Amino acid sequence: MMRRDRILLAVTLTAVFSADLYFILLPKLRSKGLTSGHSCSCGPNKLTLPPSQGGLATPQLSNWTSAPLLDGTTSEPAYGGSKLVRLFSHPLYNIQTPALGPEERLLQVEQLIDYYRRKVSHWERHMKLYSEAAALANITVTKHEVTYDPDASWLKFHLGINRYALYSRDDPTVLQLIKDMQSMTVISADYTQDEKALKGACDCTQVVKPSGHHLKLALKMRNLAKAMFKPMRQQRDEETPEDVFYFVDLQRHNAEIAAFHLDRILDFRRVPPVVGRLVNITSEVLKVTQNEDLRAVFFTSPANNTCFFAKCLYVCKTEYAACGSPDLLEGSLSAYLPGLSIAPRISIPSPWIRSYTFTGREEWEVNPFYCDTIKQQYPYNSGNRLLNIIDMSIFDFLIGNMDRHHYEIFTKFGDEGFLLHLDNARGFGKHTKDEMSILSPLSQCCMIKQSTLLRLQLLAQSEFRLSDVMRESLQEDSLRPILTEPHLLALDRRLQKVLRVVHRCVRRLGKDEVITKDFVKSTVTPEAATDGTMQR
Amino acid sequence: MMRRDRILLAVTLTAVFSADLYFILLPKLRSKGLTSGHSCSCGPNKLTLPPSQGGLATPQLSNWTSAPLLDGTTSEPAYGGSKLVRLFSHPLYNIQTPALGPEERLLQVEQLIDYYRRKVSHWERHMKLYSEAAALANITVTKHEVTYDPDASWLKFHLGINRYALYSRDDPTVLQLIKDMQSMTVISADYTQDEKALKGACDCTQVVKPSGHHLKLALKMRNLAKAMFKPMRQQRDEETPEDVFYFVDLQRHNAEIAAFHLDRILDFRRVPPVVGRLVNITSEVLKVTQNEDLRAVFFTSPANNTCFFAKCLYVCKTEYAACGSPDLLEGSLSAYLPGLSIAPRISIPSPWIRSYTFTGREEWEVNPFYCDTIKQQYPYNSGNRLLNIIDMSIFDFLIGNMDRHHYEIFTKFGDEGFLLHLDNARGFGKHTKDEMSILSPLSQCCMIKQSTLLRLQLLAQSEFRLSDVMRESLQEDSLRPILTEPHLLALDRRLQKVLRVVHRCVRRLGKDEVITKDFVKSTVTPEAATDGTMQR
Repeated sequence: MMRRDRILLAVTLTAVFSADLYFILLPKLRSKGLTSGHSCSCGPNKLTLPPSQGGLATPQLSNWTSAPLLDGTTSEPAYGGSKLVRLFSHPLYNIQTPALGPEERLLQVEQLIDYYRRKVSHWERHMKLYSEAAALANITVTKHEVTYDPDASWLKFHLGINRYALYSRDDPTVLQLIKDMQSMTVISADYTQDEKALKGACDCTQVVKPSGHHLKLALKMRNLAKAMFKPMRQQRDEETPEDVFYFVDLQRHNAEIAAFHLDRILDFRRVPPVVGRLVNITSEVLKVTQNEDLRAVFFTSPANNTCFFAKCLYVCKTEYAACGSPDLLEGSLSAYLPGLSIAPRISIPSPWIRSYTFTGREEWEVNPFYCDTIKQQYPYNSGNRLLNIIDMSIFDFLIGNMDRHHYEIFTKFGDEGFLLHLDNARGFGKHTKDEMSILSPLSQCCMIKQSTLLRLQLLAQSEFRLSDVMRESLQEDSLRPILTEPHLLALDRRLQKVLRVVHRCVRRLGKDEVITKDFVKSTVTPEAATDGTMQR
Repeated sequence: MMRRDRILLAVTLTAVFSADLYFILLPKLRSKGLTSGHSCSCGPNKLTLPPSQGGLATPQLSNWTSAPLLDGTTSEPAYGGSKLVRLFSHPLYNIQTPALGPEERLLQVEQLIDYYRRKVSHWERHMKLYSEAAALANITVTKHEVTYDPDASWLKFHLGINRYALYSRDDPTVLQLIKDMQSMTVISADYTQDEKALKGACDCTQVVKPSGHHLKLALKMRNLAKAMFKPMRQQRDEETPEDVFYFVDLQRHNAEIAAFHLDRILDFRRVPPVVGRLVNITSEVLKVTQNEDLRAVFFTSPANNTCFFAKCLYVCKTEYAACGSPDLLEGSLSAYLPGLSIAPRISIPSPWIRSYTFTGREEWEVNPFYCDTIKQQYPYNSGNRLLNIIDMSIFDFLIGNMDRHHYEIFTKFGDEGFLLHLDNARGFGKHTKDEMSILSPLSQCCMIKQSTLLRLQLLAQSEFRLSDVMRESLQEDSLRPILTEPHLLALDRRLQKVLRVVHRCVRRLGKDEVITKDFVKSTVTPEAATDGTMQR
């Protein structure tokens, strides 16, 4: 065993032990003095944590929160004042992943660089032809030069994707990518692939994809970074009307942004980077698109604002259009994952999928022993898959997203790969409502990863309070405030409910049954544990 | 000449003279003392009116405002406190129409009674067959007995329609009809004829009729009265977003109600009676409809409310549904006019029609001399038609309705008939905006009926103030408040703008050119003036 690996193991075990001590033993001792009628003792609120140095891993301070804000101003630099800095320097957020071999990385450098080079030259050839054709057809399209940049942040982001997460905690790449998406010149705009697949048809037999509100675009930056743009459709303080079904709810750009921040705070890192941007829909969409159909859905509103509407409802649906003021429109930009040709993913229906009809019910809604069946079925009968589903359900419960019908994984990492938490724009619709059915995987299976539980417990403490760290984190986005106060406070309330569900499970089945120790699993790969090839 | 006719003529002339004296001569004398720079002197605000007795027609106090409110409480009975009572007892509102011969009435009693009898027996036959069929198909439809009532208020309303207006000022029928529509048992519900014509298709090439928001139903009462139900789609305090085109704006049930009250206050009486009602969409629509298609668009929302959506967007468009709470839904009920088979109407495009496209412009928008062309064209080259169009434009300007693409007239009354002001649900969308282009017929033609102008001037005075009489009048509806304060106050502001336009016309062309004396015309029929057959 290499010295580095030994240190790593020691650090990990120390972290687990300290966490155990402070979260499980100490509360038990304390609770002797408490009345047993108190309903929520699972999230100890008054624990003081040890200083983050000492026997634990030296905290690797992320430069995230001490970095200048995206718009040039600086955020609170004082370590003591920032709960977010304190959170990210906590031992639980400083467990190192092992060195990554080629099999642990999604992409190889040469492969991606080659892909990028081909993209650039294809773009240049294409633009030459298109410009000539456009000139003949009297279409004026703003031309931007493409730059080939082997240091591009999106390239580094793609290269950083590994079997554990989309990015590592202390990777400056993500910060740079966010900056780039926020400010880089847009050279082209188009429909996304799935909207193109619709071909403008409005399939009314499909209840799931009906809405005239689906307005998302793929934007390309000058270094060929690609981001998905979801325009603002709703004011921050508007609630989803109670009579609206989850599957026809509006997509909220701010939910997309907030979900990325929450995912990072939960240390999942399964949501690709998202940032808010004021997009000039005239110069950055209409003037740079080469898609005739997209150009055709632009119009000037009675108030002289530039607007565009969903292709599938052409002409009819100006009332559901998104409009600039007069050209500027808020939206979220989500970084694209590597193309499916170089990094294939599969989309799998969630075992807790909802019935996408008005009256239908799925088995999980009526059968309390549903999880027993699932536990016996591949791929949920071994490994982490079910625990990952439960992580996802906790994430969705916190944001209030009922629309997670499928999840995606990278095929390369097989059944042990992490689940991507894509498409979170239907979260944060109702701050008044805690939809307990979203938590069904947790409440029915009564299983949770120890790493997830410990972080949830940490975030339930007043020193780190989830709403506080979220507020601080979201403050970094130029479209701040991203969430209203009621939505932030709902996070704390929902977190308590998650912990209460876990607590009930533990009381019923015992700690060992419910809490799965996953630290070693996530730091030492299965290959390393069996054949030792990684232990140089 | 009969004595009665002589008195009538004397009374009319006295009214015109008094009005002239108080509105035109007196202000002129007063304005000698004012600075000429004052921009609005057209609405004299400080005139004291003569007591309404004297040489003028004895005021026929309408029992409208002193009557008990529709929900059983009583309105302010004091004559002195009620501006509305004072308004309706003003001489201008007490000019009698002459006795009506058969040619002045839309329908003859025998004809309508016969029509009604046939309807009742048809309904009874139909229900017998339908009940048997429904029982076989296991459909439970609530059965209600139909009553044949020769004194039914809707029958009297239809019989009262004459060449001058839809109803007379002091007709108790309208009040009764309103009460009946508000409280009578609904025995059947169905799509309206125009929605049936669509056959559920959503014609996307038609920009004018696109919306999933079009949700109106025909309700039949137990005495076979028919009313059009427009459900609430918008809160009272919601404004139409500035980027929404007028032709896709929501239909507002409260605008429909308010427009009826305004029309009555302007003494036009060209809007069929409208009243607000809390409709139980389960028991009064779903359970009584015999239309399968209508039954099929009902569903229960996630909040357990009963909802229904537009037929033309089946399955897809639950997000645009109208929902009860859990079953009760506010809506407007507008009395149906007599069927086209017994009282045909024609629909004529307005000469000031708008371009129903995103960018198109009509001639009237660019040609300042447009009215000169119109004035020379049939049917605008003689008679009252153009003046009626101008009345309508003033009405539409006050309510802020940009969507008057067509107007309707009863064919029986020929070119001299009044214009029906149907379908006003797109009014009252923005209280902040005064859309001056709606007034183009007035501002371009510089013509107005004296009767209209005098009443507008009266309503500009603080003793009668339009917003005050509207507030009082709308207070009678059980869904009060019908309009928010900003919408009521906008009426006063817009009225001033109408008067200012007239004032500018008078300054430019002189009183005689602009103000058309119409009192005699409206009280003595063209036939009577030429062949004297009416003057027995």
